[in-house]
This record gives sequence, structure tokens and C-alpha cells, in this order.
Amino acid sequence: MMSTSDSLILHMMSEMNIPKNNCPRIIIIGGGFAGISLAKKLSKKEVQVVLIDKNNYHTFQPLLYQVSTGGLEPDSIAYPIRKVLKDYPNFYFRLANVEQIVADKKKLITNIGVIEYDYLVLATGSETNFFGNKEIEKNGMVMKSIPESLNLRSLILENFEQALLTDDLHQRDALMNFVIVGGGPTGVELAGALAEIKKGILPKDYPDLDTRRAQINLIQSGDRILKEMSKKASEKAEEFLEDLGVQIWKNTRVKSYDGKFVRTATELSFEAATLVWAAGVKGAAIKGLDADDILTKGSRIRVNEFNQVLGHDTIFAIGDIAEMASEAYPFGHPMMAQPAMQQGRNLGDNLVLLLAKKPLKPFKYKDKGSMATVGRNKAVVDLENFKFQGVFAWFVWMFVHLFFLIGFRNRMVVFVNWVYNYIRFDREARLIIRPYKRDYSNFK
Amino acid sequence: MMSTSDSLILHMMSEMNIPKNNCPRIIIIGGGFAGISLAKKLSKKEVQVVLIDKNNYHTFQPLLYQVSTGGLEPDSIAYPIRKVLKDYPNFYFRLANVEQIVADKKKLITNIGVIEYDYLVLATGSETNFFGNKEIEKNGMVMKSIPESLNLRSLILENFEQALLTDDLHQRDALMNFVIVGGGPTGVELAGALAEIKKGILPKDYPDLDTRRAQINLIQSGDRILKEMSKKASEKAEEFLEDLGVQIWKNTRVKSYDGKFVRTATELSFEAATLVWAAGVKGAAIKGLDADDILTKGSRIRVNEFNQVLGHDTIFAIGDIAEMASEAYPFGHPMMAQPAMQQGRNLGDNLVLLLAKKPLKPFKYKDKGSMATVGRNKAVVDLENFKFQGVFAWFVWMFVHLFFLIGFRNRMVVFVNWVYNYIRFDREARLIIRPYKRDYSNFK
Repeated sequence: MMSTSDSLILHMMSEMNIPKNNCPRIIIIGGGFAGISLAKKLSKKEVQVVLIDKNNYHTFQPLLYQVSTGGLEPDSIAYPIRKVLKDYPNFYFRLANVEQIVADKKKLITNIGVIEYDYLVLATGSETNFFGNKEIEKNGMVMKSIPESLNLRSLILENFEQALLTDDLHQRDALMNFVIVGGGPTGVELAGALAEIKKGILPKDYPDLDTRRAQINLIQSGDRILKEMSKKASEKAEEFLEDLGVQIWKNTRVKSYDGKFVRTATELSFEAATLVWAAGVKGAAIKGLDADDILTKGSRIRVNEFNQVLGHDTIFAIGDIAEMASEAYPFGHPMMAQPAMQQGRNLGDNLVLLLAKKPLKPFKYKDKGSMATVGRNKAVVDLENFKFQGVFAWFVWMFVHLFFLIGFRNRMVVFVNWVYNYIRFDREARLIIRPYKRDYSNFK
Repeated sequence: MMSTSDSLILHMMSEMNIPKNNCPRIIIIGGGFAGISLAKKLSKKEVQVVLIDKNNYHTFQPLLYQVSTGGLEPDSIAYPIRKVLKDYPNFYFRLANVEQIVADKKKLITNIGVIEYDYLVLATGSETNFFGNKEIEKNGMVMKSIPESLNLRSLILENFEQALLTDDLHQRDALMNFVIVGGGPTGVELAGALAEIKKGILPKDYPDLDTRRAQINLIQSGDRILKEMSKKASEKAEEFLEDLGVQIWKNTRVKSYDGKFVRTATELSFEAATLVWAAGVKGAAIKGLDADDILTKGSRIRVNEFNQVLGHDTIFAIGDIAEMASEAYPFGHPMMAQPAMQQGRNLGDNLVLLLAKKPLKPFKYKDKGSMATVGRNKAVVDLENFKFQGVFAWFVWMFVHLFFLIGFRNRMVVFVNWVYNYIRFDREARLIIRPYKRDYSNFK
């Protein structure tokens, strides 16, 4: 409920510069898979749509790890949101941060002004969950956005440049030690890509370093990696990673990282200049819609089968931020592209039904399977009736990712890069465009 | 002339971690066109080569303006220097800033340690010349490196996002006003690209702005643009630009820019959120080799016909930083890729001759012509006996630029982008990956 200060803020801030017309105004916060799918569905309907995002582009998150490891340029996995919307009449895009939702006034407070909605859709996605560990948040690297992925790319390369500067082999080893926390798809794919860099690129790029000493440690709290996939997929992925020289630590929980020493609950210790935290995400909630009865433990917003936020008839949540508990998915759907896109499309239909005062269509998730890649010719795919691993799985993985990328140009550029990288065992985007400038004073 | 403090610094700093062997050590500072051409020439010679650059990549500078205008991704015009050197025995690369040359000790002071050379080659290129105007340096944008070009890309896009936020048409116009200072190839190519964005992209991306009001002003101090090229080329380029809607101001010298008002010596005033300074470059000189008798007015280093620095037998300079005065080129060669590459190759031969105590080969510049592009199907080319403009010139321009790009992957990716952009009248890299975060408080 609104406090006096909220009321004051609303009063003082200027209105966002968007004309109101006769159509109901639907505001979508977030241009990820969920938000874009919804926008497309609404493109020709009798509604005004305002899409707000903090970036002017859509990010194809599944390939961020390839940006980090120099396999792809960032621009080829990003797509201008304005271009998606360009042929839609009555669509507005605003580059803005939404700071607060004032539900009882049906208004949003953003950094560029206040705006009123008739219907609000949260498609804000997820953010890294450090589970309250401030030290890891400060010293660890993450990979949830393009700038973060580019920071990691720079750091990986800077570590090797730094390793050249010391005579102390012990420090060199620490600089070339990569600890990845989290055995989900992100951790697994990053570990595999780093292992391939170690094998194919480092010996040529750094002839004056013994890069065989570089280590990739993948730490998983549970008893298997890729725990959302089949047992067979987990086993095969572990085998692939071990073949590539990745050390996997299962049933191991990371406790702390001070920028040099990674310590685990099981009293293990790794001396490493890099810790990548891929061990958890949580919903990217927004102030004003973050009461305890609305948010789940993972900061997701509880929604009913129509993606409606409980207690708010005109507010919806879709994608990672939404938790729709059901018998099959008691903790909501997996935080991945597929449920997000399907919810976006379903909500598009439902908003039209709602405006026509017709009964809504409950969301039904169609699980199309899941997949992860470990490296060259090495991937695992779980479909409903068919689970397979290896070369064919790898081609399927590539085809599916190319297919879901937005934009013909992006597909072409990614394809060219992949063919080149495959033939040449190479990754040419090993560029430190913006140095990460880590403090290396403890590694000398 | 080493001072006591230099001596102290040398004594205190650690040596760079590169083993000395029996071969003479040649240090090349800079991995641009000149440095890379020289390195390639020395690849199989009996020398140790240490290449130092402040980036781990070579930049293909002629295409920076396409990065700024969203036509190309930065990674496709950069190439990892380590990859260039990977098959060369006895080559070392170091990512470092050279802070000082201590010629009488034959040493370099860098941010990662001190290193001794037998021969030193400066290939440091050029940097933006503000001619002492601190205000323009602070408020203007430049385009000499990839990060700078990406900053400009972000700013261009942020300006339009900002224009949406104001109701004041006067401020909107100022936000959509681009002033480019300098009618050389950089200014001309940027102006043309912006004009094409205005025509092809802005109306679709910003339907709620009257983007016809966007202005591109190109300001040139002399009486024609592209003054290094033929009269015909200048005339045609002006015609092309005017067709595209660029306003050209000749015989006009910019005096000041306070972040809002551009003022000229002729009492003109432009209200603009963006000023791009492309009006001059100077040699990127290094402390210790910057005495008045060594540097020219444009901060270039005076060299003899063997690219030897006057008074320093073992120090050479090539490319933009070198000024080799001759009858045909009393102020040195043009600061462009061609002379840089040719000097690099010639010096490669000369260093081998020098070590064999044979007479050196004087440098002879073979002018292969020059060219600039204004936009789609619009370019100007001056060859020695053949000057032409228009569609064919544009194809020649593209072919030549693709040819000189380093790396097959880069060529392919650039080619894909160009074909796509040509067919679709589009530029999809209109992404604000790292916001420039300009202060817009004066534009509200």
C-alpha cells in the first residue's frame, strides 16, 4: 500500500512522455524472451503497448558463455528491441529503470518519469543469487548480462598476461586457476569452453607459459551436474568434462572467496584469481511488488495459472520472475527460455480475452526438452522420449540455438563464427576491449 | 640525458620477465599497421622480437566509424596480436604501456617492468590532436580506438532516447544535432553514415520523434573536404554528402564547445549534444624521446630515409609517428595505413641488412592511391592515373578494405554484415552495450 512519501514522489515526478489514446495501455517491463514473445503477440491488437527495458537490446542469454570465452562477439547475441517493435503500430519503447510499482495508483516510477498503466506485465527475468554472501558478490565474476560476460572475457585474458609477469610458479598457478561454482548449464558450458581454450589456444598464444598447469575446477553442491537433466545426461557431461581435463568437485559447497582463496564447507581450498559464480539465480523483483506474500523464497512472484499476480487483477508476471506452482512444477517452471516464451504467448492471448471479457486460458507448459553443450562434438540432449549425447546432440544444440537467435544477421554471424571456430579450433574474439582491471597485488 | 631520478627508477624497477638469448633483441612498440608489417618481416630472422602494445589486439582503424554507427561489431575489426605472432619462434608479446625510453641505457620503462633493447622501433601511431583546446578535449567525442568508437555509438543512441524525454522541441533539436569537426576521411565517412542512419533507421526506430529534424553538420577549416585527395574527389564527396542531407560548413574553424554550444571563429553557433572531433592527429610520442630537436610540430619523430631517428643509431620510427621529410613529402608521408605498412616492411629488410653490416635500403613510398566512402554506392577513389567516383568506387572501397582486414573470420563477418546492411538498408549493431552516461542536465 502506498505511503505518504510514495504519494509525494508521484506528485513531484514528471509524467513519462507517452500520449494516452483510447486503447488500454499495457506496460511490459523487460525485453527478454518472455517480454518479446508477449509483445509480438500483441502487435496487431487494439492495445497500446509500452515496453520498458534497462537496455536497448534483447540478450540471447544462452550464448553469453561464448562471449566470455572469445567464441562470439557480443553484438551477434544482442538484438535491438526497437527493431523488433518497428512495424507495430501503437507500440512505445522506453530505455529506463523501473524503480517502483505503485499498484494502488496503477503507476510506475522510473528514472525517466512516472507512467500509468491499465495492465502491467512483469517480465524482468532473473538475477544472480549470492544467497547473501557479500564477499563472493564482491570478488566473484558473474555472467548474466553482456557487459558482465565481457568483463569475464577480459579477466580471463588478463590473468594470463599477468601470469607472465611473475617468476613465482605458485602465483602463476593461482592466476591460471579458474574456479566455477555451479554445475548447471552455465557452469558446465563455461568449464567446457575454458578447457578447449586451454587445449587449443593457450599453448600457441602463450608459448612462454606452461599452460598445461592451467586448471579448471567445477564445483557443484549436489551429487551430480546438470541436475535438471536426466541421469544419463549428467553422467555423460561429467565424462566429457573430465576428458577435457576439467576437475569436477561434487557435494561441495563454496563458503567464501576473498579474491585469492576459495574455501568450501568441506575444508577444501583453491588458490585462484578467478571465481565464476553460476550457482544460483533469483527473480528480479521490483520495489512495491515485493511483499512477503507475493514473493517466493527465490524472489519470484507467485502467479496463478493465468500468470496473474495474486491479489492484483491487472498485474501479470511471466518468465523467470513468475512462479506458477502446479502439481507437475510445485516450485514453478524452470527458469529458462522455453517457459518464458510460452508464457509470453499465452498471456498475449489472455490479455485479448480479458479485454473482450471472455474466460482466460490457463497456461500449460509444453516441455520441449533441454540440452547443454560441453565442447566440440560434445553435447547432451534430453527430449521427452529420446535422450542422446555426443556429436549428433552437439549438432542439434547448434541448430536449435541458431534457430532461436533473433535476427537473420545474428544467425549468419554466429554461424560463420561457429564454422570457423570448428574448422580452425580457434576463437578469435580473445580481445581485451575494455580491461577489467582486477587488483593483482596479491598475486606477485 | 638520463637524470638521476631516471637512474633511480631503473634501479628500483624489476626487469621484465623475458629471457635474453644470443640473438639481438628488437623491441617494437605498437601493433598497428606499421608494427605488424615489421613483425611479419622479421618472423624467421635471427633476432629476438618483443612486441609491446597497450592492447592485446590490432585495430583496423579505417573501419572504426562503422563501429560507431552500428554497422559493424568491434570484434570484427580487431585481431589478437598473439595470434599474428603465434608461429614465430623467438617472438614475445607483452601487454604494457611504455612510459619512458632511456636511450643512453638502451632501456624502456613500462608499467610491467624495465626491459633492455638492442634495437628499438617506435610504431606508436598517432593520437587525437586537440591543439591545446582543453574544453573540446573534455566535451568532445573522438574515434581513434575501439572503446572510443563504442562510446560514440552509445552516445548517438542515447541522444535519441533522451530526445524522447523532453517536450521542448528546441532541446530535442539540440539532442539530435551532430556536429562533426574535420573534413578528412574520418569526418566525411562518419557524416555519411549518420546521414544514412537518419534516413533509413531513425524513422522506424523512433516513430514518436520527428527525426527529420536531426541534423548532421560537417565543419571544415579549409576550403574543401578531403583536401588530401583530388579536387574532383572533394567536389563529388561534397555532392554526395549534400544529397544525403549533410550540411557542410567550409572555411569554418571551431573555437569552443562547452557541451552545449559549438562556436566558430566566424561567429556561427550550433546547439548540439554531440561534437565529434576529427580535426587533427599528432604523433603518439613517448617520454625520453620527445626533445624539441627530435619531434616535429605535429609531435612526429624526425627520421632519415632509413626510418632511423636522428642522433640514435639503434632507434627507428615507422608509420604515423615517423616524419620522413623528402622532396615529394616535405612534411613526411600521409598518416595512413599504406606508408605505415610499407615502412614496416622496408625496415624489416633494413634491420637484417644492418645486422649483416650491409648498406641499408632507403625507403621509397609507393602511393597506391586513396579513397573514402560517403555511403551506399557513394565513394571516391583517386588512383595515380585514374580517378573515379560513385558505385564502382564504392565496390572498390569495400573490396580493398576487406582485403586489408587481418584474418579470414573478420573478413567473413564484415562481409556478411555489409551484404546484410546493403540489402536491408540496416545496421543492427545499434546497441548500447556500455552506456556512455553523458550529463544531459543542460538539455531539459
